[in-house]
Parts: sequence; structure tokens; C-alpha cells
Amino acid sequence: MTKKNSVFIATSIDGYIADKNGGIDWLHSIPNPEKDDMGYMEFIENIDALVMGRKTFETVCGFEIDWPYTKPVFVLSNSLKEIPEKYLGKVFLINGPLVEVLKQIHSKGHGRLYIDGGTTIQQFLKEDLIDEMIITSIPIILGGGAPLFSKIPKELAFELIKSTVFLGQITQNHFRRKRK
Amino acid sequence: MTKKNSVFIATSIDGYIADKNGGIDWLHSIPNPEKDDMGYMEFIENIDALVMGRKTFETVCGFEIDWPYTKPVFVLSNSLKEIPEKYLGKVFLINGPLVEVLKQIHSKGHGRLYIDGGTTIQQFLKEDLIDEMIITSIPIILGGGAPLFSKIPKELAFELIKSTVFLGQITQNHFRRKRK
Repeated sequence: MTKKNSVFIATSIDGYIADKNGGIDWLHSIPNPEKDDMGYMEFIENIDALVMGRKTFETVCGFEIDWPYTKPVFVLSNSLKEIPEKYLGKVFLINGPLVEVLKQIHSKGHGRLYIDGGTTIQQFLKEDLIDEMIITSIPIILGGGAPLFSKIPKELAFELIKSTVFLGQITQNHFRRKRK
Repeated sequence: MTKKNSVFIATSIDGYIADKNGGIDWLHSIPNPEKDDMGYMEFIENIDALVMGRKTFETVCGFEIDWPYTKPVFVLSNSLKEIPEKYLGKVFLINGPLVEVLKQIHSKGHGRLYIDGGTTIQQFLKEDLIDEMIITSIPIILGGGAPLFSKIPKELAFELIKSTVFLGQITQNHFRRKRK
């Protein structure tokens, strides 16, 4: 089983994933008439499950859309006690040290994981558990908001696998963790 | 006279311009056998003068190299009282509100300015005085250090002019401020 923890996320030039009001309207500031998904569907097809924090889960629940994921979603939370009934069978609560969490998810047959949400990504990076990052950069300085990265103890070298420009304005860099 | 304030700087994936110890060795973590300057000389040829803060000036003075600039350097400082004798005629102290500083520099015939150093760039961005940014991104997460960006009051939209990959590993994005 291939085991891989991947990030697929968009940021501003100054590294925020949500603006000062928690908003993400700026993600759509570049006209996209043909609704280019910038590799999202291809990425999703190649993962087995998602891992996200409670905040991201609740944000997604708040969108006025149907549940957007066809793969199992594991929600990392110590405070949530149960999953709302409508998500049963799709969403699973999980907690504990990340290496244990990963063992549990792997034991269910899910190896290729989409790690989502600022806090969760930061926790994974702190323990050097991210294997690849696909970072899409929108040409705006937000000046504040929720940052993608936080302070971490150790430097982490990556390799650039691919760099793509979408819609003439949006760059997307695919990085793979370079381990010795 | 063309008036333009430009940034040309390298950052880590997580947006730092110096590591936790103030070091910049990581800038050279990608082998560069043919010493590709990644557009630096071309950029320098098209500016009239540099504007930097005291800290950046003192850092450059500390490098064990000859003075690297052929264009006038304006050092923004309230604390420095005089320029060391060896830099007379090359380096000029300047202070006051940025718009006044710019007027003074423009009045000397220097329109196209290279704005350098984290603090100085941040001050210029706070007042929306940056017209273009050429940001070179090294594929490493430093986890801490001196950030390129700081909190600023207003969102600033940019246009992507060009995106280049150097040495197969380093991306460089050229942004131009999009004003209405």
C-alpha cells in the first residue's frame, strides 16, 4: 500500500489561506470562465481518504452545498463527541498522537491521504509527516488572516516536481519532501 | 521620468528571507554550477537607485566582499547619524515619511527604485508604495526567521507578469501591482 500525506491548498502571496474575516472569496478573484479546477479532480482521484481538523470540517458543513467528498473523511478532534447523523458512514472522528492516527487510518486500507486545514497541516509539518504539497498561489496580498505555515522546529527541504501557471495569473507548485 | 518601486528578493516556501539565526545559506541549497543569477543583473541594470533599511545596510557592510552596488544606495534610518567614510558618495542617509523620502530621491533624478530589506519592504507595502515584486522561491520550509511580509491594513491585488523556473527547482514570480 502506498502511504503518502499530501497537501493541496491555495494561498495568497503572503501565505494566508483565509482572509482577516475568515473569508475565501479572494480565491475566486481571477476570472475562471471555463471553471478550470487546477488539478483538483485529478488530485482527489489519487487519494484514499481525507484528514482534516474540526474547524475545517465545520466550515465545509457550513457551505450551502451537498457533502463534497466521495472519499472517507477523518476529522481530528478532541472536543467533538459525535458526528452529525447525516454524515455517518462518510465522516469518522479520530484523535490521539498523529503517528497513531495514521496507523489507524492505514489499517483501514487508506494509504494516500489528503491532509487539509491550516491547523492540521501545521501539526503534520511539525512532525515532518507531509510528503508532498501542491500549493496554488493567488496574486493578492491579504495582509492578515489564517496562515498556511506556522513556526516549526526543523527545516524541511523539498523538491520542486512541477510548476504550472493557470489562467495566466495563478501559479501552482508541486513540492515533494526531500528526505535523506 | 519613470517612477517605480520594485522588490527583488528570495524567500523560503514559508515566506522567510532569513532563517532563525539570520542566515541565508539556504539560498544556495540548490546546486548552481553555472552561477545563474536568476535575472538579478538584468533587474539591477534597470533601476536607478536602491532604498534599504539600516539593518540591511549593516548586513551588506558585514559581507566580506567589496561594496556590491554601482547605483546610489539610500539608507532609511533615524538612528544612524553618519555614513562610514568609505561609503561616501555611494551611500546616502535619508529619513522622514516615505512619501517625502521618495520625493527627495526622485528630485535627484532617480525614478526606478530597488526597495530592499524586510522591514523596508513591509513599510512600503503598508503604504501601498510597491509597484512590482520579483519573488524567487527556494523549495525549503525554514520554520521561522525574518518574514518577508507583515500584517498590513489593506488587501493589495497584483498581476502575474511572468513565472519562471530556474535550475529546475527555484520558481520566480514577477508581480505587478494592479491599481484601479
